[in-house]
Amino acid sequence: MKTIEIDHIDGAARSGRLITGHGTIETPVFMPVGTQGVVKAMTHGQLKELGVTMILSNAYHLYLRPGDELIRRMGGLHGFSGWDGAILTDSGGYQIFSLGVLREIKEDGVLFQSHIDGSRHFLTPEKMIRVQENIGADIAMCLDECVSYPSTFEYTRESVELTTRWARRCLEARSEEGRQRLFGIIQGGFYPELRLRSAEEILSLDFDGFAIGGLSVGEPKSLMWDMVDTVGDLMPAGKPRYMMGIGLPEDLLEGVKRGIDMFDCIIPTRFARNGSLFTWDGRINIKNARFTDDEGPVEEGCSCYTCRTFSRAYLRHLVVSHELTSFYLNTIHNVYFYMELMKKIRNAISSGTFDRFYHDFKRRYEGGESDDRCSVCNG
Amino acid sequence: MKTIEIDHIDGAARSGRLITGHGTIETPVFMPVGTQGVVKAMTHGQLKELGVTMILSNAYHLYLRPGDELIRRMGGLHGFSGWDGAILTDSGGYQIFSLGVLREIKEDGVLFQSHIDGSRHFLTPEKMIRVQENIGADIAMCLDECVSYPSTFEYTRESVELTTRWARRCLEARSEEGRQRLFGIIQGGFYPELRLRSAEEILSLDFDGFAIGGLSVGEPKSLMWDMVDTVGDLMPAGKPRYMMGIGLPEDLLEGVKRGIDMFDCIIPTRFARNGSLFTWDGRINIKNARFTDDEGPVEEGCSCYTCRTFSRAYLRHLVVSHELTSFYLNTIHNVYFYMELMKKIRNAISSGTFDRFYHDFKRRYEGGESDDRCSVCNG
Repeated sequence: MKTIEIDHIDGAARSGRLITGHGTIETPVFMPVGTQGVVKAMTHGQLKELGVTMILSNAYHLYLRPGDELIRRMGGLHGFSGWDGAILTDSGGYQIFSLGVLREIKEDGVLFQSHIDGSRHFLTPEKMIRVQENIGADIAMCLDECVSYPSTFEYTRESVELTTRWARRCLEARSEEGRQRLFGIIQGGFYPELRLRSAEEILSLDFDGFAIGGLSVGEPKSLMWDMVDTVGDLMPAGKPRYMMGIGLPEDLLEGVKRGIDMFDCIIPTRFARNGSLFTWDGRINIKNARFTDDEGPVEEGCSCYTCRTFSRAYLRHLVVSHELTSFYLNTIHNVYFYMELMKKIRNAISSGTFDRFYHDFKRRYEGGESDDRCSVCNG
Repeated sequence: MKTIEIDHIDGAARSGRLITGHGTIETPVFMPVGTQGVVKAMTHGQLKELGVTMILSNAYHLYLRPGDELIRRMGGLHGFSGWDGAILTDSGGYQIFSLGVLREIKEDGVLFQSHIDGSRHFLTPEKMIRVQENIGADIAMCLDECVSYPSTFEYTRESVELTTRWARRCLEARSEEGRQRLFGIIQGGFYPELRLRSAEEILSLDFDGFAIGGLSVGEPKSLMWDMVDTVGDLMPAGKPRYMMGIGLPEDLLEGVKRGIDMFDCIIPTRFARNGSLFTWDGRINIKNARFTDDEGPVEEGCSCYTCRTFSRAYLRHLVVSHELTSFYLNTIHNVYFYMELMKKIRNAISSGTFDRFYHDFKRRYEGGESDDRCSVCNG
């Protein structure tokens, strides 16, 4: 079963089409995050208008609430939520390790306490495949262990071994092969040797695509790219390559430059809710007092509903006044910016001008008026 | 200057057209509340789609933040906010008395402390006319004193006298007569004698329309309608009649039945944010566990985006999961319900069937499945 068709290659960058049960997705693609089956402060209709073709949801969250069995009975997450685009679910590895109050990793799976009600759960690779099948994700992810930064070599080595054993069990556990795609995840912390080993093991298994996980967990940016460079060349050309949890606009460019096809990140939506808005001249924080009587749009020439309709002064007023509408309008702008960025990236690749686009973007974006810092990575 | 044209009369109920600087508004009209220059959890585009032609905003809030001078420089609230429908501003009487931390009523005006930053302000009738002119409201309201329930006869009598003196000063203070309409407000607490006296005094002044204020402040419903009945017959047929801060769907029907043309209330939007949704069979709270796996829409046959797209089960999941999108989707439904209700009321009046509509509505609505109480009036 083919999962990706590559149409253009420009350096290491590539553009093409991801084949899913809910549409053919142009790549490179950015997936907004809809953790609980909804992209925060967005309606599905709005997402469609913005050009979103695929979202990421979290099997861990949906398992806890409303429950994957309920979702299955309601027609899977597509039927339950009414979202008819593609859905990829993260298996919950990252969430269990970042949100679980109590967690104990055993050979068989992971014991943890719900962040919602403190209830105890034991999740195994097999269980998380079943959960994702119940959810009906177009693409499911293996349950993996996501190690923190820093971690010792020894701990990371054992974790890589466990993640490989779990990956094999995930493959075995599939009951609906042919309908739902399953991706393996390369781990290995920040040890090139372990990244190579994880890549070698995971890539030897018959997954429909491959992800690089465990990045952007507090490490310096250069180290993150070292890890991608370490395994990038090993990833097969005929399968999708997915960089999990990334990133800022400049990260998307760096990833695409290294041949990555898929990205997801909470950044555009979470930043929007903090008043941090993306423009081609860098990021601005709309709360800044300098926008108090600024009659211009967030970005001159931007075609999103927010920029077509509202001034920076009004948007600032909404943030300062704690108005809910502010979340919607800011999210519209940031998601639109990300969708435009991906479209321009795809066009640049197909016209063989990605390298020029990359440099032009960085020069303008980094030389721009950014007046705030990333609340996740401080970058 | 004509402010309303009455096209149909059916009993005491009437339908027609309110003439404003931003469109001709079909009456009876319900105005969603946009306290700070935005209807909570709504975009202007969404409001337009829902058929909203006029909103209420608060001069008190906008004076404090972002400031009426800023709004004036930005083209008034229409230019500043981008809302191109009609706007009525409440002068702030109710807000000063309900939100002001410290307040002292003097002959000249009212001293109070901002609920935002504790700063002290002295507002006079003249000042609030200037503020509303800066805001550029299509319809401005007089500064009045809104007495609480219960209040002594003596206190209420003095308050009525003050409100009349302030009303005269508001009329005098107008600098842009002909552009902005100004409405007088009948007060008088819950003493028929004082309501009559206030009506006599206020109605003798040359306002463009008249409001009944100081209702729904904790009194029994029957007392509220007694007050409306007391003054209703005195209100001139050729000018708009506005019942401030009202109400639930059944209240709109009762008001229309008594010849009221205009209403505003936070109920549809605030209730939506609490998960309380209106249907023709009564009100439901979408948080209720009985909707956990309910695949039906909020209301069968409803044409709003929310009902066309989402199940009760999914909407419940969004509320329970504290998702921002829930506020948006629920508000869409409730505002749509109110707009539909007003449309049906207008149609019933124009076809001379209001009385039948009134009874049919009440029978179905009150016999329905309501499972929650009004969080404002407990009704």
